[in-house]
Amino acid sequence: MGDAALTLYELAGADAALRFSPHCWKTRMALAHKGLEAERVPWRFAEKEAIAFSGQGLVPVLVHDGESVSDSWRIALHLEERFPDRPSLFGGAAAIPLARFANAWADTTLLPAIVRIILVDIFGCLDERDLDYFRSSREIRFGQRLEEVVADRPAHMAALKQVLTPLRRVLAQDPFLSGPQPAYADYCAFGMFMWARCTSPIELLQPDDPVFAWRDRLLDAFGGMARSAPCA
Amino acid sequence: MGDAALTLYELAGADAALRFSPHCWKTRMALAHKGLEAERVPWRFAEKEAIAFSGQGLVPVLVHDGESVSDSWRIALHLEERFPDRPSLFGGAAAIPLARFANAWADTTLLPAIVRIILVDIFGCLDERDLDYFRSSREIRFGQRLEEVVADRPAHMAALKQVLTPLRRVLAQDPFLSGPQPAYADYCAFGMFMWARCTSPIELLQPDDPVFAWRDRLLDAFGGMARSAPCA
Repeated sequence: MGDAALTLYELAGADAALRFSPHCWKTRMALAHKGLEAERVPWRFAEKEAIAFSGQGLVPVLVHDGESVSDSWRIALHLEERFPDRPSLFGGAAAIPLARFANAWADTTLLPAIVRIILVDIFGCLDERDLDYFRSSREIRFGQRLEEVVADRPAHMAALKQVLTPLRRVLAQDPFLSGPQPAYADYCAFGMFMWARCTSPIELLQPDDPVFAWRDRLLDAFGGMARSAPCA
Repeated sequence: MGDAALTLYELAGADAALRFSPHCWKTRMALAHKGLEAERVPWRFAEKEAIAFSGQGLVPVLVHDGESVSDSWRIALHLEERFPDRPSLFGGAAAIPLARFANAWADTTLLPAIVRIILVDIFGCLDERDLDYFRSSREIRFGQRLEEVVADRPAHMAALKQVLTPLRRVLAQDPFLSGPQPAYADYCAFGMFMWARCTSPIELLQPDDPVFAWRDRLLDAFGGMARSAPCA
């Protein structure tokens, strides 16, 4: 295991050290949870050809001993299967479907709430080659200019607070979404907060929110890996 | 186990056979999952004294060999602990915190989306003694008359469809939220649909929605227990 060759393609900004994709953060936390090191390759939206070998056009892509795996969820299952002697990302088969639900919640409920706050800040981090693609694709998706999407920040902050209710309820009882120790479901939600942390100066949480303390615990995990990550 | 004495206090309507509380449905499905039979006692909001022995004022209350347990989540944990040889409600310790998240999502995201559609229909099912309490407590909670809460049904149906996105995403892949077989996390979300089914003629789902087929599978579970339950 110690000599597994792992390469992770991660979305990067104008500064190649800035790695802010929420889905790539899920994978980085999963690798750290398994105690694995990967070579981390910066990638931009404009570089589709650089990951064409994976058969699709999105990151994260993990290359493991020559085998490529794309999609953060599939990467998590791959790591769990191929490194069974390392700490489990799920804690058992019964938890995998429920972790998938937590992941779906993060992607389809939490991400849309956060993007309405940080979208212009994300744009501000991008490599020059990605600016036109990002603006046009997101403006089609939202049916608004980027600046209009984020215009009513107080409303979007209130909506985010509401969206976090189920996570907050669990974290009022348990230190992590996965129980006493963090696991993959935590990284799915935490990835969204790293996306914001790396791209935006806006603080999404109040200090008295149990979600704030949970985020702190994950920032400190793995020797403070996430806390020390470059931010814009 | 066969001779465990179990009594379940359930919210009932004007028709005592009408049992529509979403939280009581979670417990009914949990009991059925464990293959347990309980004496089911109808209870109305006006009958606080009838469950005063439980130290609180809400149903479900389960009385198990003289010990009372309230709160559907605590009841599920109680059943799992006290009937370990019956089918597991969680499938293992690692899944319990994530099932709690699914329960919190059902309670704080799905329930509020459904209530804005069925609130007046719930009112129409209540026992005469509960009408004033229900109207006044809910109108304070919503800051609107019951009729105003549900007035814009197309908007509330669209909001519900959106809220169901993470559940739909999982059910597009797996038959149940808990994987190949249903477990407690499924019953938490399903209870919300039984609440609607028992009180309201409004169909919440489109037949081509994976959530529709999942609901059908749970209506058919345990010999069609939920499908054959009395509706208003």
